[in-house]
Amino acid sequence: MKFTDFDKTQAYKALQTFFPPETGGTEGGHLTKARIEQSSIPMAGGLHYNYAAKGVQPGLLPLLQALADEQELIAKYKALVAGEVMNTGEKREVLHQQARSVFDDDKPVPQRKDYIEQLAKFSAFADKVHAGSVQGSTGKAFTDVCQIGIGGSDLGPRALYIALENMCPKKMKAHFISNVDPDDPSAVLAGLPLETSLFVLVSKSGTTLETLTNEIFVKTKLKEAGLDPKKHFIAVTSETSPLAHNSDYLDAFYMDDYIGGRYSSSSAVGGVILSLAFGPAVFKQILKGAHEADKLAFESDISKNAALLDALLGIWERNFCGYAATAVLPYSQALSRFPAHLQQLDMESNGKRVNREGKAIAYKTGPLVFGEPGTNGQHSFYQLLHQGTDIIPLQFIGFTESQRKDDVVVEGSNSQAKLKANLAAQIVAFYNGQSVDGDNKNKEFPGGRPSSLIYGKQLTPETLGALLAHFENKVMFQGFVWNINSFDQEGVQLGKTLAKKVLGGNSGNEALEAYSGLLGVLL
Amino acid sequence: MKFTDFDKTQAYKALQTFFPPETGGTEGGHLTKARIEQSSIPMAGGLHYNYAAKGVQPGLLPLLQALADEQELIAKYKALVAGEVMNTGEKREVLHQQARSVFDDDKPVPQRKDYIEQLAKFSAFADKVHAGSVQGSTGKAFTDVCQIGIGGSDLGPRALYIALENMCPKKMKAHFISNVDPDDPSAVLAGLPLETSLFVLVSKSGTTLETLTNEIFVKTKLKEAGLDPKKHFIAVTSETSPLAHNSDYLDAFYMDDYIGGRYSSSSAVGGVILSLAFGPAVFKQILKGAHEADKLAFESDISKNAALLDALLGIWERNFCGYAATAVLPYSQALSRFPAHLQQLDMESNGKRVNREGKAIAYKTGPLVFGEPGTNGQHSFYQLLHQGTDIIPLQFIGFTESQRKDDVVVEGSNSQAKLKANLAAQIVAFYNGQSVDGDNKNKEFPGGRPSSLIYGKQLTPETLGALLAHFENKVMFQGFVWNINSFDQEGVQLGKTLAKKVLGGNSGNEALEAYSGLLGVLL
Repeated sequence: MKFTDFDKTQAYKALQTFFPPETGGTEGGHLTKARIEQSSIPMAGGLHYNYAAKGVQPGLLPLLQALADEQELIAKYKALVAGEVMNTGEKREVLHQQARSVFDDDKPVPQRKDYIEQLAKFSAFADKVHAGSVQGSTGKAFTDVCQIGIGGSDLGPRALYIALENMCPKKMKAHFISNVDPDDPSAVLAGLPLETSLFVLVSKSGTTLETLTNEIFVKTKLKEAGLDPKKHFIAVTSETSPLAHNSDYLDAFYMDDYIGGRYSSSSAVGGVILSLAFGPAVFKQILKGAHEADKLAFESDISKNAALLDALLGIWERNFCGYAATAVLPYSQALSRFPAHLQQLDMESNGKRVNREGKAIAYKTGPLVFGEPGTNGQHSFYQLLHQGTDIIPLQFIGFTESQRKDDVVVEGSNSQAKLKANLAAQIVAFYNGQSVDGDNKNKEFPGGRPSSLIYGKQLTPETLGALLAHFENKVMFQGFVWNINSFDQEGVQLGKTLAKKVLGGNSGNEALEAYSGLLGVLL
Repeated sequence: MKFTDFDKTQAYKALQTFFPPETGGTEGGHLTKARIEQSSIPMAGGLHYNYAAKGVQPGLLPLLQALADEQELIAKYKALVAGEVMNTGEKREVLHQQARSVFDDDKPVPQRKDYIEQLAKFSAFADKVHAGSVQGSTGKAFTDVCQIGIGGSDLGPRALYIALENMCPKKMKAHFISNVDPDDPSAVLAGLPLETSLFVLVSKSGTTLETLTNEIFVKTKLKEAGLDPKKHFIAVTSETSPLAHNSDYLDAFYMDDYIGGRYSSSSAVGGVILSLAFGPAVFKQILKGAHEADKLAFESDISKNAALLDALLGIWERNFCGYAATAVLPYSQALSRFPAHLQQLDMESNGKRVNREGKAIAYKTGPLVFGEPGTNGQHSFYQLLHQGTDIIPLQFIGFTESQRKDDVVVEGSNSQAKLKANLAAQIVAFYNGQSVDGDNKNKEFPGGRPSSLIYGKQLTPETLGALLAHFENKVMFQGFVWNINSFDQEGVQLGKTLAKKVLGGNSGNEALEAYSGLLGVLL
């Protein structure tokens, strides 16, 4: 296996001379029925990835296939899953796929038995909570569960909870505290029945400033209410952290250093709260969808591997068309916070400027990722997407059926049909555009704005897992192409260090002190 | 008053040759105490705008002042407020500032008396609802209020409500339905006490597809519950719309065509729901802060006008440094949806590719705008902001005090101090960066990443209004510089038209039909 900077590959040179990047490669006006029907790749959970409205000119896919082959993307994925040290910065294995590979006996690593054991352990714990045999300090059954965590311990689990909360019957209502802003825990706690609330403290290292501060915030309130914090807290952490094997917690569930925060939704980080909220069976369906997606991602033919092709088209857009951002646009209100999770997943993984050995690179890496659900976004930032001066590639997501099947017919169609009609219309509008006669071009749409579409029957726990893993694997493949380490996050360290200096009261840095003065840090 | 394309101005040429744009103009390592303390401009509501960490090299500000003067930014603002037709696309006046200019007798336009009248009318209505003298169809007092609207009828009002809901005592709990996805109204209604809920239907034209569909969705549920929809609905609309003077509504409050959707938070669109939720006095405080900001924005000296300088620095970054995006990063959980509002405000206003007469322009206009609250973002996408290959300018917002004053001291500091320390640390980290010895540059931070800081004592209704107007005015000034019309949104039309064709069942467009087939639009 060779690790080569992207711009040193043959494929890079071939792509550079392939097509005038100004046009992005979309063919305005030529989005045919045949092209659309021939451009779908099956994904896990019954989903499909359709790339008809991407800028795929004849001749591009063979070059992308050659890139995948030259950079050995599938071999690297296999090595990662098999336990090679692919997180070169932190010198760690990368095993989040193994955490959901618990139904199979394929390609196990020694750690998988721990993952299976933890899954069984927190599933049993959730069952006991639901049965009322684990109780709060006054002997009442728990009704609510509140996760305390930040970053990967918050965004992924929260996005998944929101995606399912209006579909799956709730065994407990879930809440989330993340920000060190005291208004966050204060407001969340004001809406919680403390006596029957169970708190899940999530920190891999057991040292996350925000999370430990919020733990004390919550425990103070519990004590003030005459409750025993020990009976209201469980921990999700690494077995080597100070939170492990600690009698301050009712129980603890373990992840290891081989599962990065932003990849941890399929570990206990997501599993505990989702199993408590919806029951362990729902969480296992998420894992099943994710694992199916992981298996499909081993396919080396890019025309049969949605995550791989999605990754390569993103590379084409980022490095050769020069597009700086990607919008994620789910036509599903349930996915309202899924773009925020993908924002972390992608930007924290691939927002890097050195290769996996720490050497500077001379090409663009991860794009800016943002998004809001449609149709809401149509009435907000789509104006710029259609008629702005930058082209921003789009990732649409849509489903045939709603989650709740609660609908109304107005003017001959129900709301779900209106939602889907808008989605279909947008793809075509972005691609084809619209010309106008005359001098006033205010109503002209340039078109040529590429998008892809992930579609399926319904957003269920299984399709949600498939979506989650699709994007994780896409981001992984892009990291391999760029020859960067997608699994560390050194860019978060400097701010932490400086904040500690400020709180120490004597930072020895005049800029820190001047800003601290403006903000009244230490009043 | 002259209207000149930006690249035809003298100032454009001067800026083009001013400074090598690669560096962005920040001076790594030279963020001095003096520079920080001398770079604050007072804003309304006791806020300040600090631009010390922007890339302001000696000589830049005079060029930006010359640009402001040459493009007559203040004269254009004055003309706009005085009722000149500045929305050239739709041939309308632009009067959102007049809607909050209700405490003054300065610069009135004829419409202002209507704005004052409507404000009085919906304030009185809110008082009656709170007193229980307006009741639902079973004679019970209203407890909950639910806005049905999308885009500007949703994002701004929702962001303002969330900003205040954990601080201001609630007279009624507010809810929002926006998406045509049926899972949105279905889930919101499942959590509402229908019998005591008042719905506010908001659509200026009275023809918004999503909003009218959701109206029927809600009315169907009310009827099923044996309630009379007429007694549970009020309308906020234009007086010429089908919703006006209509006995289907308990009452109606009017806006006019001179207040654009994304600028309508300070009209009845935001005023009705906020007055019902918090009482009219709170809404008037928002207006007061906004109006104070509007008054300060008349200052022609850029060193004394925060909105103007913010606009010009954004132009410098967008057109001369080549930065494609801006991140809005409030260190305040209460502002969690404020970036989503600014995203619409900015991208829908300035995401344009023709000038105000509809002629093509050859320079970049509005940037991509996105953001999440800190410290949450630090554990998410800040990795890319610090170490990614693109520079993204940052707009920080922070407050000395929390809203709820409910805090805990951990390791010698309370949470609010930790929040502020992180904010101070990030500004310095982004600007100064950090070099490392040796070959491995994974822990190196390039620095030179510009930011500005808006800071104040506390997020209150008045400071919130000041913030809102600051950004509206910034966006307006940028539109004037680019010589575009920031007040229409033709880019949303094509998708609407095509969606209607799809729903008509025979679009005559093979691409629309193929996508409709994939999505099962008309099952």
